[in-house]
Amino acid sequence: MNSTIQNQLNHRSIRKFKDIPLTPDQINLLVDVARHTSTSSFMQSYSILSITDPEKKAKVAQIGNQNYIAECGHLFIMLADQHRNQLIAEEQDTDTEVLGSFDRFFVAATDAILAAQNIMIAAEAMGLGAVFLGSILNQVDQLIEIFNLPEHVVPVLGIAIGHPDQAPQLKPRLPRDIMHFENTYPKLENVCEALKDYDAIVHEYYDLRDANNRVDAFTTQIAKGMTRKHPGRMQLLKFYQGQGFIKY
Amino acid sequence: MNSTIQNQLNHRSIRKFKDIPLTPDQINLLVDVARHTSTSSFMQSYSILSITDPEKKAKVAQIGNQNYIAECGHLFIMLADQHRNQLIAEEQDTDTEVLGSFDRFFVAATDAILAAQNIMIAAEAMGLGAVFLGSILNQVDQLIEIFNLPEHVVPVLGIAIGHPDQAPQLKPRLPRDIMHFENTYPKLENVCEALKDYDAIVHEYYDLRDANNRVDAFTTQIAKGMTRKHPGRMQLLKFYQGQGFIKY
Repeated sequence: MNSTIQNQLNHRSIRKFKDIPLTPDQINLLVDVARHTSTSSFMQSYSILSITDPEKKAKVAQIGNQNYIAECGHLFIMLADQHRNQLIAEEQDTDTEVLGSFDRFFVAATDAILAAQNIMIAAEAMGLGAVFLGSILNQVDQLIEIFNLPEHVVPVLGIAIGHPDQAPQLKPRLPRDIMHFENTYPKLENVCEALKDYDAIVHEYYDLRDANNRVDAFTTQIAKGMTRKHPGRMQLLKFYQGQGFIKY
Repeated sequence: MNSTIQNQLNHRSIRKFKDIPLTPDQINLLVDVARHTSTSSFMQSYSILSITDPEKKAKVAQIGNQNYIAECGHLFIMLADQHRNQLIAEEQDTDTEVLGSFDRFFVAATDAILAAQNIMIAAEAMGLGAVFLGSILNQVDQLIEIFNLPEHVVPVLGIAIGHPDQAPQLKPRLPRDIMHFENTYPKLENVCEALKDYDAIVHEYYDLRDANNRVDAFTTQIAKGMTRKHPGRMQLLKFYQGQGFIKY
């Protein structure tokens, strides 16, 4: 098996970093990898923000309630961006009403998210570690203000990158047969029973990681997750719509 | 530079495949790579459909209006999937109302899209070629029926994979300075003028690729793209909402 796939199968999210910033060459290389990601209809409807200002990094860490964001070697925020394309079209007197459709938001978000995974792979190939930050979605209204995002630009995912200062265990994933199907979606029944062995594996993983901390099984975590309703996340659609996206 | 990053910088979408199906081992390895992708809050809110039935493949090709879909060595459809998690929670008498939020759709879609890029990288590392199929979103209502997708499951991206039967040129991407910003989103002005050199490069790329076909500059393509409104794509939000997603 080649080293690329070996690394992919060994992916760990890194949440503790040494105090070493990424070099400009490293940052440029990661952006270049992102630039070469596939993009819907060649529209390149995304942009990347590098957050180097310590105050802004601290603010993102506070919004995400994750201190390690402030301590990472480099912080990227991936943006779904139709603003550049809007200006290009308007300079040619072309109507841009379509940017209000869900479709044009979703292709832009997809571009940004595919590029994010490409950055993750490249960072790991460079011997760095990284973690995706969905937590930046906790208060999108605040990020829009902090980063001065114009109409048709929204943050979709953060990436904290750096020199790893931890070596976490590989986290056990759902068995293949409950998430990979052929030709038709099967009728799922008694899922908790079907996941009994997996639950035991997840329980053991947490037990080994930290005997004093959460030792939930997978199915228990899923049920608990349904009751978490972060107020800012419950308004995400409204914040995206405020930027001119998803009107229909 | 290591081979992983070299491959990433040399990414080409492949749209012509030899008549060789992927082996079960290859498919399982690609699914295993997907399984090891980062996932929001460890919820694993996505699934993967393998389309091996020639009739169903042909139907997807027809919906996407892309014949090469029917001719690829393997076809994956990435699903944003909260159905499995819904069942897990319901079996524990937990309310799942939150699944109607945009947030819970978006984390599921993000899981699926990150995993899609991981599959792309792995396929290329295996010497295969692939192309993402945004075109599966043209008629999501039909895919829901064909694949029997339950509530809280929607297709978000297709991947056609196979043994490459073409060697396309590297497609020139937007220059770094117009898509990578630091700390704040800049005020963009005269974008077409700023992209004049890039437009010339894109024009030359198309000219070399096919002298008889489209020789648009990038900015012209963007303007034309604003006027394309595929009827099915303009209803994408409605179809996703019909599956129980994005009610607020």
